[in-house]
Amino acid sequence: MQPSIAVADDLATQYLLRIGDTALILAQRLGEWTGHAPVLEEDIALANMALDLVGQARAVLSHAGAMEGAGHDEDQLAFLREERDYRNATLVELPRGDFAFTVLRNAMAATFFRLLWARLQASSDAELAAIAAKAVKEARYHQQHAADWVVRLGDGTAESRRRMLAALDTAWPYAAELFADDGVDEAAAASGLGPRWSELRADWDSQMAEVLAEADLPVPAGSKFLSSGKRGVHSEHMGYILAEMQHLQRAYPGGVW
Amino acid sequence: MQPSIAVADDLATQYLLRIGDTALILAQRLGEWTGHAPVLEEDIALANMALDLVGQARAVLSHAGAMEGAGHDEDQLAFLREERDYRNATLVELPRGDFAFTVLRNAMAATFFRLLWARLQASSDAELAAIAAKAVKEARYHQQHAADWVVRLGDGTAESRRRMLAALDTAWPYAAELFADDGVDEAAAASGLGPRWSELRADWDSQMAEVLAEADLPVPAGSKFLSSGKRGVHSEHMGYILAEMQHLQRAYPGGVW
Repeated sequence: MQPSIAVADDLATQYLLRIGDTALILAQRLGEWTGHAPVLEEDIALANMALDLVGQARAVLSHAGAMEGAGHDEDQLAFLREERDYRNATLVELPRGDFAFTVLRNAMAATFFRLLWARLQASSDAELAAIAAKAVKEARYHQQHAADWVVRLGDGTAESRRRMLAALDTAWPYAAELFADDGVDEAAAASGLGPRWSELRADWDSQMAEVLAEADLPVPAGSKFLSSGKRGVHSEHMGYILAEMQHLQRAYPGGVW
Repeated sequence: MQPSIAVADDLATQYLLRIGDTALILAQRLGEWTGHAPVLEEDIALANMALDLVGQARAVLSHAGAMEGAGHDEDQLAFLREERDYRNATLVELPRGDFAFTVLRNAMAATFFRLLWARLQASSDAELAAIAAKAVKEARYHQQHAADWVVRLGDGTAESRRRMLAALDTAWPYAAELFADDGVDEAAAASGLGPRWSELRADWDSQMAEVLAEADLPVPAGSKFLSSGKRGVHSEHMGYILAEMQHLQRAYPGGVW
């Protein structure tokens, strides 16, 4: 078995891992739809989004590996960390769910990513700024596509509306974590690496409120629940994702068969 | 439960279903790699190929649905047929296997598709010719990518070579079916819809022999085994693929949630 790698815990690396891992794990969940979407057109759309997200994750993790100086490449970072060293927001590790949940989570994540990438274009880190300039265009499309579906299902049949309301119940409480700052955000803001994520909250709230209004869905009330994936404390679902993702690399170190 | 649809059994429809279904089922198998490839770059490459193949399947099945005149769209054809009405070559329904098997099967299938699409550009059916003009470019890339891997693994380590030899043992006997003509081919050749698939054999043999020689792998001897997926008689693996693919559409007729 391939041993785990240890990742530097400096604040800039953590900031990058939060971005790369959130894209990576969401990509896994979208990839689970391949061959299972309700129509071929959506099969293609979801797979395309998964591809964009893997590409973003790959770019950010590759950059993180170069920065942390231990010589880890993006594949080692993607496949050989312990669970607590993954720094994705918990939202993206929740199970695939039905199509309603999928499009709602996509809308929440893509709205967040679009705002984040837009700000990261001005990063003091030129490589991160370049990654962001490409990714923001992809996120814009993801947001539009997901929002169209939220409206279509929220304002659709009784059954599709019932499913969207259930999806909101499940997904919404995980939004708060996206905007909960800590020392990682402070350091990024101070160095110019990127914004405090709390700075994205107002725009996120208003863009999501707009979509939900068009879908005739209520904006759920806030709660005190705060998930903690960004700090490496994950839900019970994360272990299963990693078992699937890491099987090949762990069993056959360096093997590409 | 959504009932199955019956598909016209005219020879031109069968010819199109053989193409569309072979692309569709191979796409399912490649999609199973999302999140499981040995490196992120291959995750992306395999997902891209799956996307191209779903797109080709969608175009061909949509056209087949329009031609057979019963008003079936591509989603009904993709998701609501009985197993015996799927007309893919058996090669593509074999389980995903390891990465060596995956790249060898891809090389075999892409070499076949590239030759087929090249000929179909001259189809008497203008829409099929247009689909082929786009698809041939995609197949050329798939062939190149897969052949590069066959060479890299065949001419690699002792373990990677052992795996390529095992993959050849498994996959090669299923090649014969691709080139076994019947009345469907005769009708297509007579109407100008497309070539008899046997006409592609000589080029396929020589292109595969070239790749295997470069990989220092033997061209397996022929055998009398002839699989029969193109006639709707599938391997034991097909039922599982369809159960996965059809679950949503069968359980929730018309539902997109």
